[in-house]
Amino acid sequence: MRTILRACALMLSTALCAAGQSQPTVRVMPLPASIEMDSGQLLIDRSFSVSVTGYRDPALDRAIARFVVQLSRETGIPFWSASGGRSPTLLIHAEHARANPQKLGDDESYALAVTPSRAELSAPNPIGILHGLESFLQLVEPSASGFIVPALTIHDQPRFPWRGLLIDVSRHFIPPDAIKRNLDAMAAAKMNVLHWHLSDDQGFRVESRRFPRLHGMGSEGQFYTQADIREVVAYARDRGIRVVPEFDVPGHSRSWFLGYPQLASGPGPYSLEGNAAPAMDPTRESTYRFLDRFVGEMSGLFPDRYFHIGGDEVDGKQWDANPKIQKFMRAHHIEDNRALQAYFNRRLLKILAKHHKIMVGWDEILHPNLPTSVVVQSWRGQQSLATAARQGYSGLLSHGYYLDLMWPAARHYAVDPMSDAAAGLTPEEKSRILGGESCMWAEWVTPEIIDARIWPRNAAIAERLWSPQSITDADSMYARLESFSLRLEWFGLTHTSARTLMLRRMAGTEDVAALALLADALEPVKDYTRWKANPHADFHAPLNRMVDAVYAENDVARRFRDAVQAYLQGGHSDAALEAQIRAHLIAWRDNDATLRPLLNDRSLLQELAPISANLSALSAAGLQALDYLIRGGVSPEPWRTQQLALATQAKAPAADMLLVVVSPIEQLIEATVPPASPPSLR
Amino acid sequence: MRTILRACALMLSTALCAAGQSQPTVRVMPLPASIEMDSGQLLIDRSFSVSVTGYRDPALDRAIARFVVQLSRETGIPFWSASGGRSPTLLIHAEHARANPQKLGDDESYALAVTPSRAELSAPNPIGILHGLESFLQLVEPSASGFIVPALTIHDQPRFPWRGLLIDVSRHFIPPDAIKRNLDAMAAAKMNVLHWHLSDDQGFRVESRRFPRLHGMGSEGQFYTQADIREVVAYARDRGIRVVPEFDVPGHSRSWFLGYPQLASGPGPYSLEGNAAPAMDPTRESTYRFLDRFVGEMSGLFPDRYFHIGGDEVDGKQWDANPKIQKFMRAHHIEDNRALQAYFNRRLLKILAKHHKIMVGWDEILHPNLPTSVVVQSWRGQQSLATAARQGYSGLLSHGYYLDLMWPAARHYAVDPMSDAAAGLTPEEKSRILGGESCMWAEWVTPEIIDARIWPRNAAIAERLWSPQSITDADSMYARLESFSLRLEWFGLTHTSARTLMLRRMAGTEDVAALALLADALEPVKDYTRWKANPHADFHAPLNRMVDAVYAENDVARRFRDAVQAYLQGGHSDAALEAQIRAHLIAWRDNDATLRPLLNDRSLLQELAPISANLSALSAAGLQALDYLIRGGVSPEPWRTQQLALATQAKAPAADMLLVVVSPIEQLIEATVPPASPPSLR
Repeated sequence: MRTILRACALMLSTALCAAGQSQPTVRVMPLPASIEMDSGQLLIDRSFSVSVTGYRDPALDRAIARFVVQLSRETGIPFWSASGGRSPTLLIHAEHARANPQKLGDDESYALAVTPSRAELSAPNPIGILHGLESFLQLVEPSASGFIVPALTIHDQPRFPWRGLLIDVSRHFIPPDAIKRNLDAMAAAKMNVLHWHLSDDQGFRVESRRFPRLHGMGSEGQFYTQADIREVVAYARDRGIRVVPEFDVPGHSRSWFLGYPQLASGPGPYSLEGNAAPAMDPTRESTYRFLDRFVGEMSGLFPDRYFHIGGDEVDGKQWDANPKIQKFMRAHHIEDNRALQAYFNRRLLKILAKHHKIMVGWDEILHPNLPTSVVVQSWRGQQSLATAARQGYSGLLSHGYYLDLMWPAARHYAVDPMSDAAAGLTPEEKSRILGGESCMWAEWVTPEIIDARIWPRNAAIAERLWSPQSITDADSMYARLESFSLRLEWFGLTHTSARTLMLRRMAGTEDVAALALLADALEPVKDYTRWKANPHADFHAPLNRMVDAVYAENDVARRFRDAVQAYLQGGHSDAALEAQIRAHLIAWRDNDATLRPLLNDRSLLQELAPISANLSALSAAGLQALDYLIRGGVSPEPWRTQQLALATQAKAPAADMLLVVVSPIEQLIEATVPPASPPSLR
Repeated sequence: MRTILRACALMLSTALCAAGQSQPTVRVMPLPASIEMDSGQLLIDRSFSVSVTGYRDPALDRAIARFVVQLSRETGIPFWSASGGRSPTLLIHAEHARANPQKLGDDESYALAVTPSRAELSAPNPIGILHGLESFLQLVEPSASGFIVPALTIHDQPRFPWRGLLIDVSRHFIPPDAIKRNLDAMAAAKMNVLHWHLSDDQGFRVESRRFPRLHGMGSEGQFYTQADIREVVAYARDRGIRVVPEFDVPGHSRSWFLGYPQLASGPGPYSLEGNAAPAMDPTRESTYRFLDRFVGEMSGLFPDRYFHIGGDEVDGKQWDANPKIQKFMRAHHIEDNRALQAYFNRRLLKILAKHHKIMVGWDEILHPNLPTSVVVQSWRGQQSLATAARQGYSGLLSHGYYLDLMWPAARHYAVDPMSDAAAGLTPEEKSRILGGESCMWAEWVTPEIIDARIWPRNAAIAERLWSPQSITDADSMYARLESFSLRLEWFGLTHTSARTLMLRRMAGTEDVAALALLADALEPVKDYTRWKANPHADFHAPLNRMVDAVYAENDVARRFRDAVQAYLQGGHSDAALEAQIRAHLIAWRDNDATLRPLLNDRSLLQELAPISANLSALSAAGLQALDYLIRGGVSPEPWRTQQLALATQAKAPAADMLLVVVSPIEQLIEATVPPASPPSLR
C-alpha cells in the first residue's frame, strides 16, 4: 500500500512542475519511511487550531509554539491564538516523556494522518512529535483553494539512530546565533546530533573556569561563554538534537599550548598561526591530571553520554624529538607512536569513564588495545568502518559527507554507510553502524558563508541517514531539496541571501544582475584544491572573493547541464529545450561586455575578467554548435578543434573556482563530430 | 569652498554610474551640511585600526565595536582586533560626555577629515561621533585598488533638533527585535526620536504593574514587558535616539477600557475589534487619579522629558450621550467638546508636570487655554504648525510624512516644515518648529512587512530634516537612497528581502521570477484608498496578498517612467533608451502567458489574473506605439482611442494595487498623436 509520489522528479524546474500538475507532490525531506496517499486535502485557514492530548510538558508546548510561528510564516496567516480549540485542526498525542538527557536510540518514530477534516500526529514521545511537526510544515502548500495539506498517512522512523552534523568552530569562530539557526535547519532535516568541533590548532572556543588560559590565550577573544554553551545545548535539546562536544587530542591541540605549554611535547613557544602540528605529551602524569579536571568541568556543560576526543592526524615529530618521551616508550615497551597514542587513549578512556562518558574518536584511535565501548568515526571510508564493526566497535561514517569539499548533493547522496566494504557485514556487525555525520570544516568559512556551505546539500545527507536505503533517486531528491531550501529561509538561514549581499559588496551597487549571471556559471574548486593552492592558510584573511560567494552546488548550472543532456539524448529535436539552452548561452555570451567595466574597476572582481571572457567565448561556441546541430549536425574540424581547446583551457581552476558550464558546452561541441565512417572495406 | 558632487544624479542606474565614473560619488545620506572634496583616497584594508582620544565611555566603546562589525560586513575584512593601533587609520575624539538622558537640542555636530593616510573624526560629545561613524561607513566603497574612503572634509550638523519616526504598535504588534533593527536603520539615517505609539483602540502594548489589566486584557497577549521597554530604550540611547512614548488619550483609547471600563464615558462592554471610538470620561476625578499613577509608572520606564498624550480625533458621541458629563459641562461652563478636551488636557498637563514631563500632542490639543510649554505635532499641515508657532507653541510636522500613504519618496522629500504657511514666520517663530516625524501607522503592517513600508523612503524624510533646506534635488536623493537601501541589509533589515519570501509563499515555489516581473509593475494604492475599500478593517486578517508584498515605491517602475520621459523629451531619437523601454515592454507583454497557469492555481494569486492580462495588453500597445514613433510618429486614431481606453481602465485600482507603469505607456501612446494642424486660413 505504499505509494510514494514522484511526479515532477524528472522535470527541470519546480516552477513548471508546481504549475502543471494536479496531484500534490510530497515535498517532505527526508522522505518518510512510508506514505500512503489519500484523496482530498486539509485546508489551512484562519480557523486552524492545535490540541494536545496525552503526555505534555513545557518543551512540547514550546515546540508547538514554534510550529505555529513557522506555520504563520509559511502562510502569512496570523495564528497566535491557535491553541485550545474544541475541534482542533491538528491533534497531537504523545504517549510518554522523552529521556533526559536525550539518548542515542531514543524512539523517534511518529505517525501523521491527514484527512480533509483534521490531522492527527501521534508518537511514543515528544521527539517523534518534533519530527512529525516538521513533516507537517513541509506538507503545507498553496493551492487554488488556499493553503492545504494533502490527505495522507505517514508512518515514519529513522533508518539510523545517529544523524549528525559536525561544525568546526576552531578555524573560524561561528557565534551562537549562527549555530542556533543551523540547529533549526538540522531539526527541519530531522538530524539529531550536533558534533561541535570546539578546539583545534587554530582556536580553543569554550570558556574554561578551571583553566582560563585555554580560552583566554587560545581564542583571540572569540569563544563561547559557559552560558552560551548551556543555551545552545538547551536550544538543541528543545529541537531533538544531542550535542556531542569534540576536544581534539593529543594532536590538533596547538591552541591549548598557548596558555598551558607544559601539556605539549615540545618546547614552544606556540602561536595560533602557522602550520606547526605539536602534540600533547602522553608520558607525563600532569597531562592526565589536567585532562581529568578538564573533562570533569566540560561534563558539567555537556550532558550527552558521548564525548569526542578527536585523535586524528597525530604528528609524531615532537614525540620523536623528545628524549624523555623516547625513554618513556622504551621503559614501557611502547613500540611506536601509534602505540603511544593508544596508551594515551587508554588513559583518557579511564578519565572519560570516571566522568560517565563514552569515548568517540576518529579512525586513528582504532587500536587492538582499546575496548569495544568506544565509537569510531570514519573519515577514511566504509572500509575502516567495516573493519571496526567486525572488531566489535560501533561506528559512524563521515567519509563522503565532507561538506567543505564542495561536492554536489547527489554525490553525497550516493554514499551509503552500508555500501562497499560495509555491505558484506553480518546483521549483528551492521547493527554497530550507528549512522553518520556530515562535516563542515571551517578553513574557508565565516558566519556569513557557513549557511550556504552547509545547506541545502546537507539535507541530502540527512535523507540518506533517515530514509530507507532503497530511496536513491537523485532527481526526486533534488526536487525535494529545492523545496526544502526555500523553506529554510523562514528560519533565518542565509544560505541563498548571503550571495546577493556579497556580490553587492564586491560591486558596490545594488544592481548585481550581471555579476549574478556570471556567478551562476561558477562553483568553488572541489576537494582540497583550494587548500593545495593556498597551503599556508591565513585564517585572518578576508573571505570576500567570488569563490566565497558562489554556491557550492549551482542549481542554474545543474539545470543547464541536465537540459543539454536531455537535448542531446533526444537527438537534438526538442525545440523548447533548445530555446532554453540558447537563452542561457546568449545571456552568458553577452554578459562579458556588460560586466567588463565593473570587473576592471573593482579590486575584488579583477580576477574574474578572464573567466568572464572565457564564458563569453565558450557560450558563443555553444551557440554555434547548436546552429551546426540544427543544420545537419556536423561542424568543420578546425573550428571544433579550436573550440575544444578553448573548453579544455576554460575548465582549469581560476580564482579558486570552476566554470562548471564548460562541460555541457563541450558536449554540445562534441556532438557536432561527424558520425564515425564505416570501417574501410579495403 | 563647498563642493558637493552630484555626478550621476541624473543617470537612471547606479550600476552604470558606479562603473562609468572616475570621481567618487558622495553617497552619504542625509547629505552633510558641508563637504569639501580633496584628492586621493584612504585605503581600508586589513591594517585598519581605530584609536580614541579625549572623552570616552562604555557607550562610545560599544558604538565603535558596532562600527567595526559593520565595517567588516561592508568589506568582508575581519577587523575584530582593530582597536588600539599606534598609528590608527581612524582617530576618534570627543570633547566631553553627552547628556543623560539625551535631551532635545543636544549638540549633534561632528567633523570628519579624511586624507590618504588617515581619518579624523571629532565632535563635542559622543552623539556627534555616532553620526560621524555612520557617515564614514557610508563613504566606504569598493574601487580598483580595494575598499576606499575618498579624501574629504565634512562639517556636519542637523537642521532640526527633532527628527523622529512614529511606529504604531497598536494596530499590529511589532516585537522588540523588529523595533531594534529599525532603530539601527534610524541611526544610519541620523534620526534621533523614536515616537512609540504604544496604545490605541486596537491594543495596549506595555506591561503595567500598577494596572495589569491594561496589557492583560488590552493586548491579546501581545505587549512589551517592562524589561523589553528598558532594553529598547537603552538600545536607542546607545544609537543617539530618544524614545518618546505615546499613550493616546482621551480618544483612541478603547483598549484601556477592556480592563478598566470605569475610565470610559459610556457603559461598554468594550472589545478590541470593531470601529467604535469611545473616549475617557474627563469629568471623573478617578480618571485623573488613574492617569497620575499610570504616568508615574511610565515615567520610570521612559526617561525622556517628552511624553506624548495623543489627543487626536476625539469622538464626542459618548460625551454627548452621557448625562453626567453634560451636567458637568454645564456646571463648569464648558461650552463644547473641544473645551472639554482642553479641560482634560489642562488636568493631564498638571499630572505630567508633577512627573517632570513635557506634553506633546496632536493638532487637536491646541487650545487657547493651554500653556505654550506643550509641543504640537501637526498631522494636518504647515498651516496649523504655523498657527501654533505664532501662538508661541513649539511644533513638529508630520503632515506629508505619513509612510502608510504609500507616497513616493520624492513627494515626502518635497515637504518642508518651513514651507507654505510656515515660510512667512518670523525667525523667532521659526525657531519653535523643532522638526518633524515620519509616521508608520500600522493598519496594514506586520513585523514581516514593516521594514519595507518604512524603508528606504523614510531616509528621504530623514534627509529633509537633517540637511540644509537648499538640498532639494530629487534625482540626487534617489541615487543616494539606493545606496542607503543596499547598506540597510547589513543591519538585518528585511525591506527588500521580504518581498521575495512573500512571493515564494504565494507561489509555493522558489522560482518567482515571473511573479516578480509582475510585482515590478505594481504599487499599493495610495492615500486612504485601501482603507476606504475595507472600512471594517479586521486586524487579525492575514496580510499575505500581493498588495502586502509589493514595494510602496517601485524602483523598476520609477526608472521605466524616467526612461520614457527622457525618451520622449529627447524627440524619441535615443536608441539606447528605446531598447531599454522595449526590453521592459516585451518582458511584461510575454509574462502573462508564463504566469497564467500559476495565477489560476493559487488562491492568493487569482486576483492578479486581470492585472497581468492588462499589463500584457498595454505593453503590447506600448511596443506598437514605439513602432509608430520610429515610423514617423503617428498612429491611426481608432487604434489610439482603443488603447487609451484600455489604459484608463488599467489605471483603476485592482486588488488594492495600482499598475504604475500604465501612465508612461499612456504617454508613449499619446505621443503618437498627429501634430495639431495649423489654424485654418479660411
